[in-house]
Amino acid sequence: MSTGEGFQFDILQTRGRARRGRLHTPHGVIETPGFVAVGTQATVKSLTAEDLEAIGTQVIFANTYHLYLRPGADIVADLGGLHRFMHFDKPIMTDSGGFQVFSLGASIEHGVGKIANIFPGETPSTSANTSANTSSRKQVSQRAGGGTSLVQVSEDQVRFKSHIDGSMHVFTPEISIGIQRQLGADMILAFDECTSPLHDETYTAQSAERTHRWAQRCLAAFHSHQPQHGYPQMLYGIIQGGAFERVRRESAKTIAEMGFSALAIGGNLGKTKADMHRVIDWSVEEIPAAPPRHLLGIGDVVDIFEAVERGCDTFDCVSPTRNARNAGILRRFDDDGTPLAKFRVNIRNARFARDERPLDPACRCYTCQHYSRAYLRHLFKAHEILAQRLASIHNLHFMAQLCADIREALEQDTFAELKQAWLEPTQPANH
Amino acid sequence: MSTGEGFQFDILQTRGRARRGRLHTPHGVIETPGFVAVGTQATVKSLTAEDLEAIGTQVIFANTYHLYLRPGADIVADLGGLHRFMHFDKPIMTDSGGFQVFSLGASIEHGVGKIANIFPGETPSTSANTSANTSSRKQVSQRAGGGTSLVQVSEDQVRFKSHIDGSMHVFTPEISIGIQRQLGADMILAFDECTSPLHDETYTAQSAERTHRWAQRCLAAFHSHQPQHGYPQMLYGIIQGGAFERVRRESAKTIAEMGFSALAIGGNLGKTKADMHRVIDWSVEEIPAAPPRHLLGIGDVVDIFEAVERGCDTFDCVSPTRNARNAGILRRFDDDGTPLAKFRVNIRNARFARDERPLDPACRCYTCQHYSRAYLRHLFKAHEILAQRLASIHNLHFMAQLCADIREALEQDTFAELKQAWLEPTQPANH
Repeated sequence: MSTGEGFQFDILQTRGRARRGRLHTPHGVIETPGFVAVGTQATVKSLTAEDLEAIGTQVIFANTYHLYLRPGADIVADLGGLHRFMHFDKPIMTDSGGFQVFSLGASIEHGVGKIANIFPGETPSTSANTSANTSSRKQVSQRAGGGTSLVQVSEDQVRFKSHIDGSMHVFTPEISIGIQRQLGADMILAFDECTSPLHDETYTAQSAERTHRWAQRCLAAFHSHQPQHGYPQMLYGIIQGGAFERVRRESAKTIAEMGFSALAIGGNLGKTKADMHRVIDWSVEEIPAAPPRHLLGIGDVVDIFEAVERGCDTFDCVSPTRNARNAGILRRFDDDGTPLAKFRVNIRNARFARDERPLDPACRCYTCQHYSRAYLRHLFKAHEILAQRLASIHNLHFMAQLCADIREALEQDTFAELKQAWLEPTQPANH
Repeated sequence: MSTGEGFQFDILQTRGRARRGRLHTPHGVIETPGFVAVGTQATVKSLTAEDLEAIGTQVIFANTYHLYLRPGADIVADLGGLHRFMHFDKPIMTDSGGFQVFSLGASIEHGVGKIANIFPGETPSTSANTSANTSSRKQVSQRAGGGTSLVQVSEDQVRFKSHIDGSMHVFTPEISIGIQRQLGADMILAFDECTSPLHDETYTAQSAERTHRWAQRCLAAFHSHQPQHGYPQMLYGIIQGGAFERVRRESAKTIAEMGFSALAIGGNLGKTKADMHRVIDWSVEEIPAAPPRHLLGIGDVVDIFEAVERGCDTFDCVSPTRNARNAGILRRFDDDGTPLAKFRVNIRNARFARDERPLDPACRCYTCQHYSRAYLRHLFKAHEILAQRLASIHNLHFMAQLCADIREALEQDTFAELKQAWLEPTQPANH
């Protein structure tokens, strides 16, 4: 289907709820299911566009909150938009800033975890103290116990403090869309409030309803002004509703009916992997098949298989690149053929000190073609920047290859077998 | 002239003392005068071999002391030597470890500056408290005022403490050559003691004489065992003698007579640029023309012109890459055509916030072809790794281009004009 001027999403195959698709954008095609590499500050840390091209990265995700604060959206706009600014000629997504306003703004500056005071008159309830989720996009908006108000949410706007210099700023749906017009990503997101697993159903429902009103304002703002950089943009509506079935289904239905060209599943996805699966199911069951679907902030191997099976097309996650920078190398099997529990090894381990093999002998990435485990270990032990770069290349290539294998399995109708082979291997593979 | 098996140094032109040369090595040709990029820990920080190839870097310099401690010379040897270990197929130099043993070993661990206690019975005198020199290779071996002995120098050996874990180690001339055989650089250096500007003539002379005895031991060790990695290596003798004419000339004559295939000018080069010029002159006047000459630890723009004029062929220096990592961008002219005093600008400066021009509009490096000053400034302000990489590419390209221009001027016999245009510009250039 055409998803708006300059965009088209073709579903090539459907297997159960899973889809093999192709999203055409003004900066090229995204084969789906596809992983979106995170480049928060208009750089996928340590990598150039040429590196990303060689890796097979199709699309990247930059953060509106960060770029608004530094260098400033007007500067990015003056420099011709994100693509020109960062010398990346492929598709780019930006989030709306909503997530970071609620989570990062306060927590980075004050080191008190993810805390957000709510504007007088809107008091959230909390029902638990911990969350089983690990994605940073899932834990937000807790109430500070009588502390200084750091983020204030009202019907009209969100006020927040910069984590860089403590200056005060305001985001509204209109401001967020305006900033994302300036930044000029291909795919942009509606401004939402991302609730926390600590919020109860009443607060989550109230918040979701406000997010729906903000979604309408985002659509109106989006249609009220033209793209600034000579190519169209596509706006994603974001489904909220936490892990409460009634609220989540209602949010999915409401957002889907607003006429967004694309949809994203956001917010609190519950406290367990099982919760997350249900939240995706509830969301997907209430939305039409045609628009592309993005799952926000998810991206480990297990999650990707589960999300694809449930009908998600794209997913962004910092974990492959963050793990890379901490010496966590993505691999499917250990050297003896044993499946690796978390699909990674720590290359700092002493057993790699003299290991002349590439990180993964089966991998075709630049790093595995030219460097030994011993060299990577040395670079990490010696705190050398090149370590982070070479490991990031490998991990992003791993994700690109995983998604390519998933796409091929969907084409061949062997997705179930591929998923089982990865997630429930019955015996060591010869690898 | 043939400088030993596998090596040949051809002097293509001689202009006064300056030479335009070509050094053939087992890993390719070095056009001289040529800049040697520093890759201390078997990595030119943030860059790959492919980056260095594109930049035009001909040869790199790695540090024996660092690699001996981490990952260990035996590990590098097991992995096939430095070239294979770091995936760099061009010429590599290593130093002998002597310099770092005297300077870094103690200073990094204890944060007390460059201090070395001398073994009982060998007491250095000091004659000044400050040095005008900025090169880290020039200030060493000062006496700790009654502190713990960190480095002990005797006729036979140097004992030192690892800056990484405090473990004790011993270097001798034989051990240094053995380690450099394991590391497998093309060009290796004799083990020397690098004296300080604070040492008086008596101590400097005693030290130089010991360095000469060590040089003989290095030659004997070098000829007593074969290269380990299937290609020959070339050993540089190092001229010491501080900034004392008699001692320096004597050292140059003595080292030159030992039959080294190549010679390096090392140690304390005095307290001023004028001192350094004299030290180079005294050294060069006592040595034959045929062997290639390396000037250790020198490499700013002014120094390179002066060293080339005085007959040096190669020079290594951390400053272009270290400056790059600190946002110091090498350029000849400011935007108004004014020559830049230190040949660099700080790209963090607010005036670059919206500057869409490349770092240097006349530069053909990868960074200047694809990125704006505004983007580089953003990356530095946001503490992004890519900043260091893009700036390092530019600064090393600047050095490569400077040396290429110097070579061309020597060929055309216009070196004096080129030097004057760079160092004493009479009017703003149109740039």
